[in-house]
Amino acid sequence: MSLTIKLQLVSHLNINHNNNHANKLIKIKNNTFGNTLNFLPKPTFGNNSLTVTKKSNNKVKRRMQGNFMIKSSLIEPDGGVLVDLMVPENERESKVLEAKSLPNVKLTKVDYEWVHVIGEGWASPLKGLMRENEYLQSLHFNSLRLNDGSFVNMSLPIVLSIDDETKERIGSSSNVGLIGPDGDIVGILRSIEIYKHNEEERIARTWGTTAPGLPYVEEVIAPAGNWLIGGDLEVLKPIKYNDGLDNYRLSPKQLREEFDRRKADAVFAFQLRNPVHNGHALLMNDTRQRLLDMGYKNPILLLHPLGGFTKVDDVPLDVRMEQHSKVLEDGVLDPETTIVSIFPSPMHYAGPTEVQWHAKARINAGANFYIVGRDPAGMGHPTEKRDLYDPDHGKKVLSMAPGLEKLNILPFRVAAYDTKVNKMAFFDPSRAKDFLFISGTKMRSYAKSGENPPDGFMCPSGWKVLVNYYESLQTGEASQQPVLSS
Amino acid sequence: MSLTIKLQLVSHLNINHNNNHANKLIKIKNNTFGNTLNFLPKPTFGNNSLTVTKKSNNKVKRRMQGNFMIKSSLIEPDGGVLVDLMVPENERESKVLEAKSLPNVKLTKVDYEWVHVIGEGWASPLKGLMRENEYLQSLHFNSLRLNDGSFVNMSLPIVLSIDDETKERIGSSSNVGLIGPDGDIVGILRSIEIYKHNEEERIARTWGTTAPGLPYVEEVIAPAGNWLIGGDLEVLKPIKYNDGLDNYRLSPKQLREEFDRRKADAVFAFQLRNPVHNGHALLMNDTRQRLLDMGYKNPILLLHPLGGFTKVDDVPLDVRMEQHSKVLEDGVLDPETTIVSIFPSPMHYAGPTEVQWHAKARINAGANFYIVGRDPAGMGHPTEKRDLYDPDHGKKVLSMAPGLEKLNILPFRVAAYDTKVNKMAFFDPSRAKDFLFISGTKMRSYAKSGENPPDGFMCPSGWKVLVNYYESLQTGEASQQPVLSS
Repeated sequence: MSLTIKLQLVSHLNINHNNNHANKLIKIKNNTFGNTLNFLPKPTFGNNSLTVTKKSNNKVKRRMQGNFMIKSSLIEPDGGVLVDLMVPENERESKVLEAKSLPNVKLTKVDYEWVHVIGEGWASPLKGLMRENEYLQSLHFNSLRLNDGSFVNMSLPIVLSIDDETKERIGSSSNVGLIGPDGDIVGILRSIEIYKHNEEERIARTWGTTAPGLPYVEEVIAPAGNWLIGGDLEVLKPIKYNDGLDNYRLSPKQLREEFDRRKADAVFAFQLRNPVHNGHALLMNDTRQRLLDMGYKNPILLLHPLGGFTKVDDVPLDVRMEQHSKVLEDGVLDPETTIVSIFPSPMHYAGPTEVQWHAKARINAGANFYIVGRDPAGMGHPTEKRDLYDPDHGKKVLSMAPGLEKLNILPFRVAAYDTKVNKMAFFDPSRAKDFLFISGTKMRSYAKSGENPPDGFMCPSGWKVLVNYYESLQTGEASQQPVLSS
Repeated sequence: MSLTIKLQLVSHLNINHNNNHANKLIKIKNNTFGNTLNFLPKPTFGNNSLTVTKKSNNKVKRRMQGNFMIKSSLIEPDGGVLVDLMVPENERESKVLEAKSLPNVKLTKVDYEWVHVIGEGWASPLKGLMRENEYLQSLHFNSLRLNDGSFVNMSLPIVLSIDDETKERIGSSSNVGLIGPDGDIVGILRSIEIYKHNEEERIARTWGTTAPGLPYVEEVIAPAGNWLIGGDLEVLKPIKYNDGLDNYRLSPKQLREEFDRRKADAVFAFQLRNPVHNGHALLMNDTRQRLLDMGYKNPILLLHPLGGFTKVDDVPLDVRMEQHSKVLEDGVLDPETTIVSIFPSPMHYAGPTEVQWHAKARINAGANFYIVGRDPAGMGHPTEKRDLYDPDHGKKVLSMAPGLEKLNILPFRVAAYDTKVNKMAFFDPSRAKDFLFISGTKMRSYAKSGENPPDGFMCPSGWKVLVNYYESLQTGEASQQPVLSS
């Protein structure tokens, strides 16, 4: 069987219209299914050629904007309406002028990521940085109560801190302007509320530890001010990072449009912050098969790498994106039923608390199935020789969490390298000795040393991306360059 | 107006039937209302003469047990049915024999208090020590989801820890016997589940800090084992402390019977672990008046001192109970509309997390109004010079908490000593300089030094109880006796 898929460039608001590679198609071998696919010769990071096509986009736009809007069959966003805080283009100029007249708050890189997250509605129904009422509910209950008495999940406090000097400068102003890391006006925060930032309590309740060395705490909370400022957000400028990956940053609205365009009757999300190996691919393909067996006709995979702040020893976003593109080029995943996009949230490494956020945000993007693995969003304890979280708590807590009832949680089946058939396979405890577990640490040590993992662990072109990255890192280390996380 | 109230002894299961003082009545002056009350000459701690009368008890029993049961108008217990885990008397002997044949777990004093709490249904619908499923929901969401999808509040993990040796001894047994601090069989835990006790995470998520010096952590968690054991509880022996106060320990069922007997159409609970001063009394009387103004005909006050573990510098339970009885004798509170009883829970000092437990347990006892003050269940930070919790968070969190929607939260109005009229009065910010704030610390320092507080701060006989206590303490300290908390 030979499938011909034409992957072209979408004309979404945030996506570059001019790209030379967009219509060049070549035939490549789909290693997993034995199909020959027409595919881009090289995924171009300036365009998200892996996800969306131009062809039907106008139709989608008509459907969403016209009088004859068709109701999507996708899962409802939390609160019923997808939040979109981008100010219409014709109002921006005057609001930027207004913002310039207001006391301002300078955003850090991570603050900017949160403005991105909230502005596009990943945290729907949240419409701004949290006021104390929302902060306390998030901290104590991992959920927000809506006016109708129902709950939506909200496990991470999404807050903005300010220092004493900024608080004084704001004085009695009701609104403040938000300044991006590049110095431009990004937005306005209205009807603000300033309240105390008890860092110790926030850390303890979010991470379940106050041990020194938590990456998000060191990056964001330790240097933060004594106050939190909440309010309604208006975004005045499209959020860009100018890192060549902006076109992969599809908003929940854009993803929903694309799922609708593809007539998805199920969307299953796979959150990751690591390279994709063939065990992951096996799991994703198996999940699709299970959904087909359940009677779904067209389940679509949202392969959704996290793009915000990550700890320094994680593989950076650009390298991961290149690796993911190789996996799709190699046909390990089927591009026809896969969308690769970047989830703009920063990473907390807060285990069972954070995995709820990862799942909840994907509801807003239209996913009704969520794949959860061992120790999601976990890490080693920063000061003790053990996992920070019980590796099973993530999936247990996810299955209990208020506000996630409508999401189907799919626990990860354990995949390992089967030495009998030389490929990744689901672990069979009856012949445990045949299986080789290759941890993330082990994988990195292979790549660092230039040693190849066993055949069939990862597609060779994807592996090459990692090897190159670690080589460049060693060169960089030799020349005393600090390693920056994405 | 002169009211004649006959306070007699109730014949509840746990209440001493033989008391010489029970029917002796004298007339005393009701200082607050100017009424003359017939009252007991001296509240006797062997009987809870302050709360219940014999007269109507048989009728209540008939109502509750007979075919013609009358539906109570009191608030429903959480989960709809009040849990009662006391095994019927005729089954106890055989179950005690069974318990003796099982692997056993020895309870600490605080474990025993929790068995009391669960066994009587204060934690309804919880039917035993928490299994991991309940523990995780409590820790992460401060609530438990019921089968119908609704939530009940459950903010504190109610768990039993065991050490490695006990876990090994239990082996594969499904049930264990529970041994009280005095060596007697207390109950059976059935269909047990043993899971890891991550003390750091439990402490951080419950207290919002891991600083050393938290009283409950030092008393209970630090010496605890590596495992938690959950299961369904059967109580085989009435829980007694033999401290002369057992008859004040009314179960939620007994309290509900008494509220019904008094035809309460509103029950307002006042949790405390401190002596009652006239500011408290003002607040309680004012609350009753507000409830009458709202249209309730017979609001009853549940004055409900906490009787379990408290920190070493709190006033011990027996002293507090004696002090409370003086307050009622003096007529500062109206015995006709007040029930004094002991809440058997141990104290966590976990602020906004714990206040939910305090409120939730009172729902189960029939209270539909809950008075909440500044910094409920709070304390000073153990290692920093500040309150551990924001003093306003308790009432805020209480008003947001899942599962407490049906409870009416009544925020404490601030009372202080009004030097213009020489009594406790609600603070009037327009003449702030006339008011004197007497903190708990200040009150204790008065009592310790033998100095009298301003007239009208506390009824003189109640004050005398405190002075005597601190005098005895100093004598004790002089003879090197350690001070034990109740």
